[in-house]
This record gives sequence, structure tokens and C-alpha cells, in this order.
Amino acid sequence: MSRRLDKTSLEWLARGSALLGSGGGGDSEIGLLASLQAVEEYGPPELVTLEELPGDSLIMPCGMIGAPTVHLEKYVNGNEGARLRDRLQDLVGAPVGALMCAEVGGSNGLLPVAWAAQTGLPLLDADGMGRAFPRIPQLTMELARIPPCPSVLTDERGNEIVFHVEDGDWLERLVRAAVVELGGAACGTEYSMTAGEARDATVIGSISRAIEIGRSLATSDRDPVQSLLAHLSAVQLVRGKLVDIDRRTTGGFAVGSFTVEGLDGDTGRVVEVQFQNENLVVSEGGEVLASVPDIISVVENDRAESVVTERLRYGQRVTVVAFACDPAWRTPEGLALAGPRAFGYPVDYRPVEDLHDATR
Amino acid sequence: MSRRLDKTSLEWLARGSALLGSGGGGDSEIGLLASLQAVEEYGPPELVTLEELPGDSLIMPCGMIGAPTVHLEKYVNGNEGARLRDRLQDLVGAPVGALMCAEVGGSNGLLPVAWAAQTGLPLLDADGMGRAFPRIPQLTMELARIPPCPSVLTDERGNEIVFHVEDGDWLERLVRAAVVELGGAACGTEYSMTAGEARDATVIGSISRAIEIGRSLATSDRDPVQSLLAHLSAVQLVRGKLVDIDRRTTGGFAVGSFTVEGLDGDTGRVVEVQFQNENLVVSEGGEVLASVPDIISVVENDRAESVVTERLRYGQRVTVVAFACDPAWRTPEGLALAGPRAFGYPVDYRPVEDLHDATR
Repeated sequence: MSRRLDKTSLEWLARGSALLGSGGGGDSEIGLLASLQAVEEYGPPELVTLEELPGDSLIMPCGMIGAPTVHLEKYVNGNEGARLRDRLQDLVGAPVGALMCAEVGGSNGLLPVAWAAQTGLPLLDADGMGRAFPRIPQLTMELARIPPCPSVLTDERGNEIVFHVEDGDWLERLVRAAVVELGGAACGTEYSMTAGEARDATVIGSISRAIEIGRSLATSDRDPVQSLLAHLSAVQLVRGKLVDIDRRTTGGFAVGSFTVEGLDGDTGRVVEVQFQNENLVVSEGGEVLASVPDIISVVENDRAESVVTERLRYGQRVTVVAFACDPAWRTPEGLALAGPRAFGYPVDYRPVEDLHDATR
Repeated sequence: MSRRLDKTSLEWLARGSALLGSGGGGDSEIGLLASLQAVEEYGPPELVTLEELPGDSLIMPCGMIGAPTVHLEKYVNGNEGARLRDRLQDLVGAPVGALMCAEVGGSNGLLPVAWAAQTGLPLLDADGMGRAFPRIPQLTMELARIPPCPSVLTDERGNEIVFHVEDGDWLERLVRAAVVELGGAACGTEYSMTAGEARDATVIGSISRAIEIGRSLATSDRDPVQSLLAHLSAVQLVRGKLVDIDRRTTGGFAVGSFTVEGLDGDTGRVVEVQFQNENLVVSEGGEVLASVPDIISVVENDRAESVVTERLRYGQRVTVVAFACDPAWRTPEGLALAGPRAFGYPVDYRPVEDLHDATR
């Protein structure tokens, strides 16, 4: 059953997408403002399921690529989605049937809503990660062997670059280099596919899941952080104060680490989190508490609002939570593409539920 | 009157192109080998004049882009030209009527011959510089306001990138970044145009000029360097020994400087040459002896063979010569695009003939 993405849905989606983003995907506030404005101007777009689309309908995954730190200051102009759609149609020789968030994370769970509103196309209730990841080929479509190209990159000036390259790794290298030259952030589409292909190549239902997370947070009477933990079956890794943050914008990524000193029940604990756009590894005294591809998010203690990595600041009172990623990422292929070793950490992945049983 | 580019023509073209290249364009030996092989396999391509082509015939400027130091070790695979042709035809929606050397310099005066032979297309007797320059928009087509895009870049693996960007400066930034990721050298086309447009946007007759320079060198009975100076009305800036060379491959360019200590009649003189792929500024004790856009070439003393910047070595006995560039580069617009200040040198351009009168 299709539904319209109205303003209330978008506010819930923003909270859910920020949380699923694992600290990345860009600040959801920017995506929310862009999508609210587009909905006001063009009306709310339709959220459709794969079953509602013909099997040969062309799905366009899309979103912002680059360093979220840059995206905070270098805005989209609003026409990027329409330009990507026009160029992709030319390249594929078929009309785009629906837009899809490449990742349901932060701003990238919302920008495609704005583009769907503007182009009059529906948004698919699915994404390519069930979270956010920093590198382009870290997509369920890559696991399903959907070809990454043609891929299109565009910026707020109207520059467009089309990539026809042999695999996702080459696409990552070449798109990243272009993004750096374009100023550190741009918008793109890659791994386009038919609705029929998408049935086995995407994380289905992730947009409605994000909306449901946001709705639960907005409407719960309980302590927001406790409500969140219960709703997601999430693990509370540490609750405390952010006492150190080291963040660099380099090579088209926001990279660094931060430290949380425990407060309340966690007094005396010191927990470190490494990130590359997204939070990747949480450790305490050399012991890993959670790692990518599981979802690691930072929420502030009062309202359980997610804090993306580019918004982390000294002194924030936060809780670091972790919960299970989509099962696709726990397969050997999924871990090879997006497990801790894919990011250079000499860590064997263990599901956060197992680690939690072992350490608590 | 059209003519076939047979093996003898190509050997002459290689010598002439190396000299016109001003030290750049890539080692002509590589371009010569590639074109000789293609001619053997596919037969000699036709060299045509603009008058022989219909006014709406599509001209594809093409060549290697990147650091010539890399091109020495990272070869083309031979199919780049056909791939560029196919992609450009798709983008423009018209068949390519002729290939054109983007620059008649070093290897880039010859690689398009190989591609013409393979694709069965003629090569136009013209280029976009009358020499070689390091940056992409340093083309007479840019001066004539031909749009740079669509531009296509490809490499020996078969990767292809298409650029639709607003101007030549953006193209330079984005292509250069892609070239660096592709390993430092790739092949491209940009500033495609019709034959009608090319009449006012190219350096006409530059291929036959290069062949004639090579023929003159190969068939003269005089001292080769003296023969060259006479043939080109060139100035001998210094004759001596190469005593120092500083060369780095950085940002997709070969950048550096070298020093020649005078011998014979020039004993006691010390002359320095700055280069970025191409030789840019020649000076002696702070006084400029010649500068870009005039053509500055290094030839070895025995046979007057040109030495491209990536082949310069300590101990070589060489003569540095300079001669007039195409008049298009001496206009205010030409100097703004490719004069010494465009490369960051605080030097007002003076034609090499005038400097020569003043300093000798």
C-alpha cells in the first residue's frame, strides 16, 4: 500500500535516518529542510514498495557523496536529482520509474525525497545499505553483482561527469577524486537497476523502518534513550561525556576518533570510537565493544537525538548505542566488503549481540 | 591535395613533432612505434586539409593527457582512439569525419595517426596549438570559444569517463584529477567541432609543417643544428652541457628545471630552463632569454634530435633553441591563456625575435 511522504513522516524519517546512518550520511537537518521545502513546493511524493512497480521499471539510487563536514556548508541547489535523472535516462535509454536512497542514513535518507517531489517520481521503500557507509561500492547492489555503471556525478554548479568503469573500486577511486575537485561534496547515482533486480539487491522496507523509528521516538512516553534501546533491541555501549574529538576532512572523507568518559552508571569507563564519515569501531582498553557493519550511533542523553560525526563537540552528554545491521552484511561477502578489515582494522567481526553477551 | 601518411612521412613527423612540442607532448619514439605498427597493420591513413572535408564533418581532437614521465612506462593499448571515437559519436549523435592531433608535440603528434589508421578515418592537417602545452584548455579552440564538452577520457584498461562541465578550467581540474587516479596518464578528446568551425579555431597545416621540418633535418647536408636554426628562423639560446636536472612527477605533470653550462662559443654561460611538461622560461642571470608561448626546444648537438623533458639527463651535449609560436598565442587572449603569467611567472612576454635582437 503506497503512502504519501508528508511533513510529519519526513520529521520522523529524519530522526530514524540519522540513527540508522551510524553517524554518517550527512546531517539529517539539511536533508529535512530540503525535503520539507520541496514537499511544500511540489506536494508530497509517494513512497512505493517494489511490488507496486513493474519488474522492468528503472530504479535510480542516489544521494550525496563526499565529506559530511563539507556538506554542512556547501549546499545542494535542488536541481541535482532532476539532472541525474535526465542524464541516467539518456544513458540507459529508459525512463526512471522511481528514485531510491542509496543509503538510509542522515541527510541521504531525505535528499532523494526532495528530488522525488521535484521530479514527480515515487520514492522506493528500500535502500542499498540499511544504514550508511563511507565508500561507494559498500552497497547490497554490489553484493548482488548489479553493475555500478553508468554512474553520474553532478554538483550545484551544473557540472556533470559520467563514469563507465570496470568495477566499484575504480568507481570509488575516480568519483572520490572528482568529488574532491568539486569542493568535497557532490551528488551522484550509481548501480541503477530494474525493480525486478532490486528485489534481491536492496534492503527492503528501510524507509518505512526509519519512519517507524522516528515515530516511536517522537511518541514514546518513556525516557527517549531507553525507548530507543527497547525499540531497536540495541545495546548501550557507554553513557557519558564527550571529552575528546579528533576530526580531519581528508580525501573526500571526514576521518577521526572521539572519546567518551562514562558518567552515571558508567563512571570510570573510557570508550573510544573510530570513524570515517560513519562510526566504525568502538573499543575500551583495547577490547572491541562493537564494529562495522553493525550500526553504531551516538545520541544525546536528553532527547535521544542522533549526533552525526561532523556535529560531535567537546562536552556533549551522549550515549553510544549499537544494534544489528542488515543480515546481508553479516555474510562472508558482506564482511569482505564492509567489515572492520575492509577499513584496515585488524579486528574479526563479531555481532554486537554476541559481544554484548560476552562483555556484560 | 590529400596524401598518405607512410612510414617515411611518420619518421619525419616524429622529428618535427618532437621539436614543435617544446619539450612536451610525450616521447615521440613511443608515438612513432605505435603509428608505424598501426600503419603496417591497417595501411597508411590519409592526411586531409579542411577544404577537403564537408563543413559539417565532425572533427575529434585527441591525444594523451598526463605526465610524459609516466607515459614512458604506461603504454596505450591501441584501442583508445576507437573507444573515444565511439563514445563521442554517441554523445554528439553524428559520425566523426576526421581525427585531429590536439597538439602537434612529441608523441601526441603521432598517436592520433595510429588511431586514424585503426579506425580508417583521415587525420586532419591541423592541431589545436601548433606546439604542445601542459594544460587542457590551452588550445586555439578555447580562444575561438568552441565548447570543451562533451569530453571523454579513457585508459588502457577500458575505463571511460565523460565530462559535461562548464568551462575549460573545470575540465582541466576534473580531468587532471581523474588522470592522476588512472595512474598518471590517459587518453582523451575534448573541444570537438565541425570542419566549418575548425577553419577559424585551429592551427592549420601543422602536421605537414612538422613533416617538412623532419624532412629538412633528415635530408640536409649541413650541420644539423645550423640547418634547423635556418629552417625555423630559430634563435640559438645556448650550446653546452646539461649539468643539473630537477624533475618531479606531481599532480599529473612532470615539473622541474634544468641547467646548461655553455661550451664552445658559449663557454662561461649558465642558462636555466623551467618546465611543466613543456619548457616554459629560459633565463640567464635573472634575464629572460625566451618564454612560453614561444617554442623552446632542446636538441642534442650531433644530430639535432629533440630531447623531451622526461629524457633530459646529466651530461648531455645540447643546444637550446627557441622560435616563434603561432600568432594566435601572441594576442592578448592567447597570452592570458598560455603566456608566462598563466604559469605563475612574473614575466612580461616578449617575442623571442625581439629578445634576441636585444640581447645579442
